[in-house]
Amino acid sequence: MIDPRSYLAEHRGAQLEELFNLLRIPSVSAVAAYRSDVRSAAEAFADLMRRSGIEQVGLHETSGHPVVYGEYLHSPTHPTVLVYGHYDVQPPEPLNLWHSPPFEPEVRDGKIFARGATDDKGQITMHLLVAGAMISLGILPVNLKFLVEGEEEVGSLHLADFIATHKDLLAADYVVISDSTMLRPGVPALCVGLRGLAGLELRLRTGAHDLHSGNFGGAVPNAAHALVELLSTLHDSEGRVAVDGFYDDVVDLTPAERRAFAALPLTDREFLDQAGAYSLYGEGGHTTLERVWTRPTLELNGIWSGFTGEGRKTVIPCEASAKITCRLVPYQDPAKVLAAVTNHLRSHCPDSAQLEILDPSGVPAFLAPPGHPALRAAEQALREAYGHEPDIIRMGGSIPVVTAFQELLGLPTLLMGFGLPDENLHAPDEHFSLENFSLGMLSLWRFWQLAA
Amino acid sequence: MIDPRSYLAEHRGAQLEELFNLLRIPSVSAVAAYRSDVRSAAEAFADLMRRSGIEQVGLHETSGHPVVYGEYLHSPTHPTVLVYGHYDVQPPEPLNLWHSPPFEPEVRDGKIFARGATDDKGQITMHLLVAGAMISLGILPVNLKFLVEGEEEVGSLHLADFIATHKDLLAADYVVISDSTMLRPGVPALCVGLRGLAGLELRLRTGAHDLHSGNFGGAVPNAAHALVELLSTLHDSEGRVAVDGFYDDVVDLTPAERRAFAALPLTDREFLDQAGAYSLYGEGGHTTLERVWTRPTLELNGIWSGFTGEGRKTVIPCEASAKITCRLVPYQDPAKVLAAVTNHLRSHCPDSAQLEILDPSGVPAFLAPPGHPALRAAEQALREAYGHEPDIIRMGGSIPVVTAFQELLGLPTLLMGFGLPDENLHAPDEHFSLENFSLGMLSLWRFWQLAA
Repeated sequence: MIDPRSYLAEHRGAQLEELFNLLRIPSVSAVAAYRSDVRSAAEAFADLMRRSGIEQVGLHETSGHPVVYGEYLHSPTHPTVLVYGHYDVQPPEPLNLWHSPPFEPEVRDGKIFARGATDDKGQITMHLLVAGAMISLGILPVNLKFLVEGEEEVGSLHLADFIATHKDLLAADYVVISDSTMLRPGVPALCVGLRGLAGLELRLRTGAHDLHSGNFGGAVPNAAHALVELLSTLHDSEGRVAVDGFYDDVVDLTPAERRAFAALPLTDREFLDQAGAYSLYGEGGHTTLERVWTRPTLELNGIWSGFTGEGRKTVIPCEASAKITCRLVPYQDPAKVLAAVTNHLRSHCPDSAQLEILDPSGVPAFLAPPGHPALRAAEQALREAYGHEPDIIRMGGSIPVVTAFQELLGLPTLLMGFGLPDENLHAPDEHFSLENFSLGMLSLWRFWQLAA
Repeated sequence: MIDPRSYLAEHRGAQLEELFNLLRIPSVSAVAAYRSDVRSAAEAFADLMRRSGIEQVGLHETSGHPVVYGEYLHSPTHPTVLVYGHYDVQPPEPLNLWHSPPFEPEVRDGKIFARGATDDKGQITMHLLVAGAMISLGILPVNLKFLVEGEEEVGSLHLADFIATHKDLLAADYVVISDSTMLRPGVPALCVGLRGLAGLELRLRTGAHDLHSGNFGGAVPNAAHALVELLSTLHDSEGRVAVDGFYDDVVDLTPAERRAFAALPLTDREFLDQAGAYSLYGEGGHTTLERVWTRPTLELNGIWSGFTGEGRKTVIPCEASAKITCRLVPYQDPAKVLAAVTNHLRSHCPDSAQLEILDPSGVPAFLAPPGHPALRAAEQALREAYGHEPDIIRMGGSIPVVTAFQELLGLPTLLMGFGLPDENLHAPDEHFSLENFSLGMLSLWRFWQLAA
């Protein structure tokens, strides 16, 4: 019987060499000058897949950078898992703030320094290395499909198209992504929920053109007044969204979930420091983590009307606009929320203004199915590898690719990230903890065993 | 005894020739290329003054275009009147929309077409021609001082400085300006009031930087929310300004004044058409003209916060701003109003935001002293010349030079304009009615006789 911990430790040198080769390729998807490097990275990942024993490996062209796909399907009675990652990286600038060149990976203080080390080359490489090891040993008990894209850092521009046109190829039981962070060193994390998003823009008009406040002021409506009057009705004095029906489908946390969140180590002080806000503010009756992870919001992202330049202009604006987005929580239907917000805006719009609603759109929240066997397996694998109960967390944002898997393939996603919050994602001196590189691979190894 | 009507009619040809010579000079103060033309216009006006028998005529240099000054002070026991006008004009563009070249004056349909015909060369020339005629006939019974500037169309940049440093030179009993319009053809107008202005900018901050609405939304304040909450408190549901003390010094119109305004011919329908607004809106209990001429306002001239570009950005803004101006009415003190608005903003500012007040400043309203003998004389002169009771009107805006005369010299101003509202001021095909050119001169002649 192979001991994965020993096996992985014995092969550490070769694993790092594979990763370093990938980190040396400046696959910056946002910058046209790196186009051929991005392609080289795709080919290098395909090459690693092939050498790992993964089959049907190939580059799938898109209108942008190619998608790398490969599969290993030899356990007909066991689950098939789609593993997603990305081989592109953020631009490395500003270069002068790096302590070692971004595309010359090196280990210092137990950390791998390079652009892409934690986001996401390091993490997706762990998956390929573990699969390769288990395939070579003949002990991989699940079916794996690998989908590694090259446009995550530019908004996964063509991935939804690719998924929609390759539904059979990508069919699976669930998705696993390792492209996120743990809350704290030494404690693994499993993210089981993301908030959704619904947004729209609104425009108020009170007349054909702006007017001189001397000649007309006092006798005509002002679109900026109408806007503040309308927008001020969207929240009550307790910080709750005052839109009728907004909370209808929101399901309260169970006492156990609330206790679990309360036990997490993030303090309000730490949260406030991260935010740089002057104060915390939010819906009564909920802790900060509950507010950010599990409560829906309605935010004004932008408002504008009239003269905003330097100096003074005595104008009465005839037009005023606002951009609004709502963060949604599980069981809220984006279309229903957008309808509720639109109804509220229409019914509260001052008589003096004409209201136009532009670009309403949204995506639902994500919640890993409670009690899903893969969740149990992942918890157990992380517990064994780290010797610590995993933090069961959520995230307040959305991850478009998780939405795409949910909407297009009907698949839930397991977010099992091994990064740390201070690893300079998207910034100079990006790095990835060697310890998590090792314990992460151990976790994945145990996970496939337990998930079979 | 000279009959002014006959005298003026006999000299019509020479009068128009003088005016046309002045209209031919493209004295566009806003455009550097016209600099020498602007100076030529100043010299031409000085020349006309000298030939009219006006004394002490000269150009006074400023940092911009020169001021032309002249005086005729030979009636020690009678009032001294300061007559203000300007010799500069607006740019003529777009040239292709003129039916005759802007600087080649011609008469069509009883109208003088040229840039500056009504604003203000035509009107100030009437003053010089009447003074010249009465001086040559030895019958000018008042003392006159002429102040003709060359920067009115660019905001009278250096005039306040000139007035402040020439207080003795400009000392007088009151000021007369003919640079405004009548309400309707055939009916002269006397403007007895202007609104003042008080303004400030405010900035709210809720934190050190904008935040991601996924990671922080629901648990931190949003500066745009704070702004709409704060600004929505500035008016009540009846359109009145809800700032404590705002109306303290506002004096209600007398029943006679209200009747006089109600008798004026401007309908709400016409006002609405001029405004291009979808509806009228304003303080309850006041007519449209009362609202615009005699009621103070508080207007948002501009508001802005967060992301205002194309598309969507899920940002929580940390800063939000607004520009506010108040139109003031007689007896309101700008400093007191600014203090009241500032107090309101401070006391209603949400706890989550820090408030900063920027650039507060203001000028008071103007009201011609009720019962002033010059008012009576002007009414009588206009009534005789036009054969119609003059409209006693106000204007909703401010005229900076009227403020300067009030603040720096302590002088009231009589606004006796002979333009018409549709004479394309600042636009192509600017023109001035020949009838008002004649009846205006007749009015001024009678005015000096009655004002003595």
